[in-house]
Amino acid sequence: MENEKFVLSVIVQNRSGVLTRVSGLFSRRGFNIDSLTVGETENPDYSRMTIMATGDDYIKDQIVKQLGKLHEVKKIQLMEPDNTVTRELMLIKVDATGGHRAEIMEAVHVFRAKAVDFTPKSIGVEITGEASKLNAFIEYVRPYGILEMCRTGVTALGRGESCLTAE
Amino acid sequence: MENEKFVLSVIVQNRSGVLTRVSGLFSRRGFNIDSLTVGETENPDYSRMTIMATGDDYIKDQIVKQLGKLHEVKKIQLMEPDNTVTRELMLIKVDATGGHRAEIMEAVHVFRAKAVDFTPKSIGVEITGEASKLNAFIEYVRPYGILEMCRTGVTALGRGESCLTAE
Repeated sequence: MENEKFVLSVIVQNRSGVLTRVSGLFSRRGFNIDSLTVGETENPDYSRMTIMATGDDYIKDQIVKQLGKLHEVKKIQLMEPDNTVTRELMLIKVDATGGHRAEIMEAVHVFRAKAVDFTPKSIGVEITGEASKLNAFIEYVRPYGILEMCRTGVTALGRGESCLTAE
Repeated sequence: MENEKFVLSVIVQNRSGVLTRVSGLFSRRGFNIDSLTVGETENPDYSRMTIMATGDDYIKDQIVKQLGKLHEVKKIQLMEPDNTVTRELMLIKVDATGGHRAEIMEAVHVFRAKAVDFTPKSIGVEITGEASKLNAFIEYVRPYGILEMCRTGVTALGRGESCLTAE
């Protein structure tokens, strides 16, 4: 069984401590989270978590099983890669000294990113896409010097008419 | 002292359990988190968390103080609203039946959002911006019917040349 990345969408009750319970489950059992995001849903009683993790089928099954035991967890869905839109947002500040400003701005356009801050020495960039696109941008600008960066982690929506809701 | 939203950027050691420790600190003490995002930084030994919370000056001070006591926390910065780019990403599926498709697509263009999924009955939209922009989009499409939505939570980058890094 091979290790692979997978994405779980989880509907949880919107109450204090649920993030601690879910993340604690992962750390206690040594499951590795690549990213976890959480936000409000259309129903104020529930939040939606998107968890990206890496593991083989056994790990995947265990995670789904253990999450399902938590009282606050209402629904869990393993997102099929072919049928899911996954997106992440990153803000990244790149060193623009050394005559590299034009090259960095070219990358910003090619990646359909956006300059959100501009000083004589640095460019702040907002970029959205699949995690792999963000990684490609990081690798491109790394030689110029990454001053700082922050990523949100991945969120995911199933394609088509099927919906994941609390009911 | 009035309650207001504030944003903290926190550099933490990239080790298992740190998310549990940070979120546990908030839930144990009854501090309310509006959103929390975490992602890799330019240095693989460290992650960067962005925490949006609500409270008065006393709460704000307490949170900074308690976070500072955690062994894994390397740096904490209270982000100044006037000097910070804050962004959030949302994927949202809207009901497009009832002849409302054109109106929804008009909102997509006005909000500079992007349709990422399109079926006879629904439109999946990707939208990025400040949390208030996302909220405005939600309110606009709510009458058409929100089928499902997922948000990443807020991430934040200081403007200008100053940088928040582990060193």
